Amino acid sequence: MANNTADLGLIGLGVMGENLALNFNDHGFKLVVYNRTASKTHAFITAAKNTAITAVYDLPALLASLAKPHKILLMVKAGAAVDALLAQLLPLLDAGDVIMDGGNSHYLDTERRTQQLAAQGVYYLGVGVSGGETGARFGPSVMPGGHVAAWPLVQNLWQTIAAHVEGAPCCQWVGENGAGHFVKMVHNGIEYGDMQLIGEAYQLLRFALGLSVDEIQAIFAEWNQGALDSYLIEITAKILTVKDDDGAPLLDKILDSAGQKGTGQWTSQAALALGVPLTLINESVFSRYLSALKTERETAARCFPAQVPAFDGDKKPAIGAIQNALYAAKIVSYAQGFMLLRQAAKEYHWQLDYGNIALMWRGGCIIRSQFLGQIKQAFSQQPDLSNLLLADFFQQAILQNQTGWRQTCQLGIEQGIALPAMMAALSFFDGYRCAQSPANLLQAQRDFFGAHTFERIDHPRGQFFHHSWPQ
Amino acid sequence: MANNTADLGLIGLGVMGENLALNFNDHGFKLVVYNRTASKTHAFITAAKNTAITAVYDLPALLASLAKPHKILLMVKAGAAVDALLAQLLPLLDAGDVIMDGGNSHYLDTERRTQQLAAQGVYYLGVGVSGGETGARFGPSVMPGGHVAAWPLVQNLWQTIAAHVEGAPCCQWVGENGAGHFVKMVHNGIEYGDMQLIGEAYQLLRFALGLSVDEIQAIFAEWNQGALDSYLIEITAKILTVKDDDGAPLLDKILDSAGQKGTGQWTSQAALALGVPLTLINESVFSRYLSALKTERETAARCFPAQVPAFDGDKKPAIGAIQNALYAAKIVSYAQGFMLLRQAAKEYHWQLDYGNIALMWRGGCIIRSQFLGQIKQAFSQQPDLSNLLLADFFQQAILQNQTGWRQTCQLGIEQGIALPAMMAALSFFDGYRCAQSPANLLQAQRDFFGAHTFERIDHPRGQFFHHSWPQ
Repeated sequence: MANNTADLGLIGLGVMGENLALNFNDHGFKLVVYNRTASKTHAFITAAKNTAITAVYDLPALLASLAKPHKILLMVKAGAAVDALLAQLLPLLDAGDVIMDGGNSHYLDTERRTQQLAAQGVYYLGVGVSGGETGARFGPSVMPGGHVAAWPLVQNLWQTIAAHVEGAPCCQWVGENGAGHFVKMVHNGIEYGDMQLIGEAYQLLRFALGLSVDEIQAIFAEWNQGALDSYLIEITAKILTVKDDDGAPLLDKILDSAGQKGTGQWTSQAALALGVPLTLINESVFSRYLSALKTERETAARCFPAQVPAFDGDKKPAIGAIQNALYAAKIVSYAQGFMLLRQAAKEYHWQLDYGNIALMWRGGCIIRSQFLGQIKQAFSQQPDLSNLLLADFFQQAILQNQTGWRQTCQLGIEQGIALPAMMAALSFFDGYRCAQSPANLLQAQRDFFGAHTFERIDHPRGQFFHHSWPQ
Repeated sequence: MANNTADLGLIGLGVMGENLALNFNDHGFKLVVYNRTASKTHAFITAAKNTAITAVYDLPALLASLAKPHKILLMVKAGAAVDALLAQLLPLLDAGDVIMDGGNSHYLDTERRTQQLAAQGVYYLGVGVSGGETGARFGPSVMPGGHVAAWPLVQNLWQTIAAHVEGAPCCQWVGENGAGHFVKMVHNGIEYGDMQLIGEAYQLLRFALGLSVDEIQAIFAEWNQGALDSYLIEITAKILTVKDDDGAPLLDKILDSAGQKGTGQWTSQAALALGVPLTLINESVFSRYLSALKTERETAARCFPAQVPAFDGDKKPAIGAIQNALYAAKIVSYAQGFMLLRQAAKEYHWQLDYGNIALMWRGGCIIRSQFLGQIKQAFSQQPDLSNLLLADFFQQAILQNQTGWRQTCQLGIEQGIALPAMMAALSFFDGYRCAQSPANLLQAQRDFFGAHTFERIDHPRGQFFHHSWPQ
């Protein structure tokens, strides 16, 4: 390739990097790629010989091949590797160059890097990219944040290769500094919640109602035609069709010990730090931790065997109630996720467009669903909506699904089946709609033992009282 | 006071500092105190004129008055104030001096400081002190950690002024570096959980069963005579006796918006970082966050009014069931807390004595209870006990209380009363005793969209498989 003509340099040829490279190439962008391990670069460029992608084997060559201002996308492992690469790159860059990090970096790292590079005249963007391998290849959800002045320089690149829903790209400017990576992190947290809820619904269908995997498969396929229509429900239905070599469901051969890559944990930690009750996602993260204790769970199963009568009710309404519970709890999960976004926007001075965020998640990514269209609509109708639960559509949806949701939690309790996410959602809902919580007793206790004082309902907020309690 | 004779220098005359000073004085230790604001020192020493405590007005005078090696206790606000004070103190110290931080410092700060000061030959201890004002004054629970070589130099000081239960001081060496502050932090997290559980029990008694505050007062007083006997139940019964000027319960005038000082949040964050499913404490932290959204809760209460029939069952067994739920959930909370301690010990290479920790909490502190005696006993009988739930005593207790616990959660669901902690405990219990969780489906999903691979039940652990799922 002639020097100074490539549109984009991409560093890091892991699964995501390779697929994004092919996606950019498909859309006519001139791409040059580099990987620290030369053999990896060689293998990729050999396989991609029918594309216009070119490869380089050192960073100066990468810079030399790029049009100015240089635009470079890092697709390397989040953490120290990003800082190490930036240290190598920085001496080679000119003022006005754009460096983008497309990995799952922590938003506080992205904030720090944006500011560090800005001090040297370089624009930094933290770009959340979701959709896994397939999304990267054919249209991901893209959540860009960082230095706003860089956005016009790369907007066309990203909006072209992103997923599109009804003509709109699932890629819009998110906000300054770590905003893009924050929104991507919350996306991942919500993904944890959605997966946990599906797991709980499956567990009830299988072990409370005693349905077969084939019967459950048909139920998920049917749910995917209605309000629950989403990628994760769709792939669940597909997973349930798969048989192992012996004809038994493959699912039953898979060890029930879940992995995680940490972004769910980050979401919960952000919620704790920002004071947001993100209960459902948090229970989903903890459920993965609990699943990892496989041996201890087997011991506990022997100590505390379930001694419950088999379900003898009518299965059809129970299935409907489980669908209600899944839907209502999902609404709570997203409501909590948007509460977290709102609080982060306040804390970090971001101007987040919540409707746009829903739109970005509407296609291309793991949590894509019809449902996000309704969220987009709710924020379009009421841009200052304080909580998703208070939007007309979701308020009605909760009211319509509430009875089945409660019945499903009761079924789980009767049958001894753990429903941490569905029950956390219900606790949150009942706590949220409770004007008179027992926190008055808690304040009295704190004043009793620590003289922490309390406010009174018959005095203005901000006046604090201490009582001399009987000792 | 003659130079070089005082046993201990105490810096920081807040409520805790003042009361600890008086406590040390009561036990015959020669104390010299210093506060950054001289007027505060003057006020204290004037009020304490009938004690042997002396005051100084600068740090060199403090050092000059202490016997060698100098022993100094910092009772200042956790965070930057501690580092600032250490920077001032360090040039004045000799090798072998002992600096102790008795505040609620983060355990990672304590770890850092212990190592920093050790590099200069100074011994640092992070000492968790619990029990509020009264505990500090008459016998706190004390959890010392840090540089183990310093412990023999100050052991007598602390074990003398600590609370004693059945002759044993509620103060034992915890472990290296941040171990003392970690254990104190978990104590505080457990305190959050205990308080939340009491609040939920109160809320059910008041608003599900429709009992009066006087009736509820009698119930808590009665509970305090049995298995739930504890400081927090005791003070709850006392709080419920208090009437406001108009004769109504004072409780009803207190705003239900809870404060917090951050140690509960730290506990949850540590659990997330260490991979421990600390669900009950976490729900308790989030409940405080939710309680703070008073105005939004009032709006939601109008949008989602409770439409439930009044409770028409027999109240006496329902009260018993609530007691069962409180007790069983409390067992889960402590089991989770000790899981966190065990994981932290592994991560930070501490040799924690879990029985000793239970003993330290047995008296002097906010969570003190009979119950902790049983925990001490469980670990004495089985020092390698992997989980408190598997100890004979607690296993039996869970089995005996399980039915009432489930009934109580169902009552909350029926009556629309939020029981985040009781239900999180039940979800955890049912998840913990579940040998076949839905995490297999979750692993299948992760492999479907991200090629994350899975293990199989018919192959050894550590072998990872990928399936080509139908797309």
